[in-house]
Amino acid sequence: MKEAQDDLTVGVLGGLGPEATLDFMGKVLRLSGARSDQEHLHLLIDCNPKVSNRNDAIASRGPSSGPALVAMAQRLEAAGADFLVMACNTAHFYEAGIRAGVRVPFVSIVEETCTALARRLPGARRFGVLAAGGCRQAGLYEKALRRHGFEPVVTDEPEQARFMELMYAIKAGERGGAVAEGMRALGEALIARGAEAVIAACTEVPLVLGEGDLSRPLVDSTAILAEATVAYGKRRRPLPVQGDHAPSAG
Amino acid sequence: MKEAQDDLTVGVLGGLGPEATLDFMGKVLRLSGARSDQEHLHLLIDCNPKVSNRNDAIASRGPSSGPALVAMAQRLEAAGADFLVMACNTAHFYEAGIRAGVRVPFVSIVEETCTALARRLPGARRFGVLAAGGCRQAGLYEKALRRHGFEPVVTDEPEQARFMELMYAIKAGERGGAVAEGMRALGEALIARGAEAVIAACTEVPLVLGEGDLSRPLVDSTAILAEATVAYGKRRRPLPVQGDHAPSAG
Repeated sequence: MKEAQDDLTVGVLGGLGPEATLDFMGKVLRLSGARSDQEHLHLLIDCNPKVSNRNDAIASRGPSSGPALVAMAQRLEAAGADFLVMACNTAHFYEAGIRAGVRVPFVSIVEETCTALARRLPGARRFGVLAAGGCRQAGLYEKALRRHGFEPVVTDEPEQARFMELMYAIKAGERGGAVAEGMRALGEALIARGAEAVIAACTEVPLVLGEGDLSRPLVDSTAILAEATVAYGKRRRPLPVQGDHAPSAG
Repeated sequence: MKEAQDDLTVGVLGGLGPEATLDFMGKVLRLSGARSDQEHLHLLIDCNPKVSNRNDAIASRGPSSGPALVAMAQRLEAAGADFLVMACNTAHFYEAGIRAGVRVPFVSIVEETCTALARRLPGARRFGVLAAGGCRQAGLYEKALRRHGFEPVVTDEPEQARFMELMYAIKAGERGGAVAEGMRALGEALIARGAEAVIAACTEVPLVLGEGDLSRPLVDSTAILAEATVAYGKRRRPLPVQGDHAPSAG
């Protein structure tokens, strides 16, 4: 109980989309191992689905999502968050701007996922990337994987177009066999091209694909961020020093 | 899309417990009928499980939960919430204090649930109440049901002690057959004593008991609050005038 009172308060930039935030929250609760309300972490969640479409913004087809994300981060900081996480990979395009807008640490899902790979899959070097168009266009995982000494295996253009169809279907509430099977086929295509494991580098992917659904391991970025959130929140791991990896964009 | 931009922002006092908040959030998302991120409601969720035990507080066995709840409500208002809901029945003991502490409307789960009964179960008059000790001790549902012209059917002392055992088991993460079966047996006891339907008047109950699990209807207060939240958030129903029912306590 003493320890639980010393927990850090977590600020969650969410709603990108909302079901992915629900999935993230559920994973945090399950990984907390709490036996009473009070042993759980205090989560401040801004589930804001009104943020402009990130993929359109990054492709210069729509307004920037940056100002809304910075405002969310600042609201969470003002409400008492000790550190911030964002339950969306693509929105990490705006990571540098968010970091610049607040004083509290920001924990990157991209960095946490790439850091977890060596521990989870020792020896593996080539990782498939299932990510949204904006995330791919900004090269968020490609750059981070190479920085960690790994080689990214990415979708080709038709596969990427198919990914976006499936992602928007999931956001529209479709979770049926066809959507899950379509996503599984994209993962297998990356494995056929040499991926030793596939990163669910979009938080919509784990809504239809589980860790054992591919012929090689699926690495769930939502689960890794949830695990890191619990570790930091429970002070089992020191928060990462800010600016210890190259932020991606403004 | 025009309409979606006009949605109200919802402030959620949560974490009482966290799994009940997750359940509430999931029900709001499912009831929103959104086909894109942007069609979902903007939810500001303070999932704060560090609030003192409400049942102990109401029984004067522990510190008041009131100040923490008022602070949460004020933080949510400051962050931009247009109205507030609380995904916990027992904590509505502090409803009057919360209302007094903010300018935005507070939507009561107790009031919404009692209002929904006539619509959902026309003709029914005697309602069973499965609620936590603090909620029972304060008579939150007993008073509200009588105000609406209904008759409450409540647990006796041994049944209430059993309810608390089951509630804390659910909060400890136990969802297995024994816990669900125990809760079902309590519901059936109320039905045997004349209840025409049973109100899950504690947000932990729907985590183990579904709407069709009893021999009479189970009324899920979490689902009713979620439905009301969507209706108010989407401006399909005007927000209730504040103070139009006697608040319960300070």
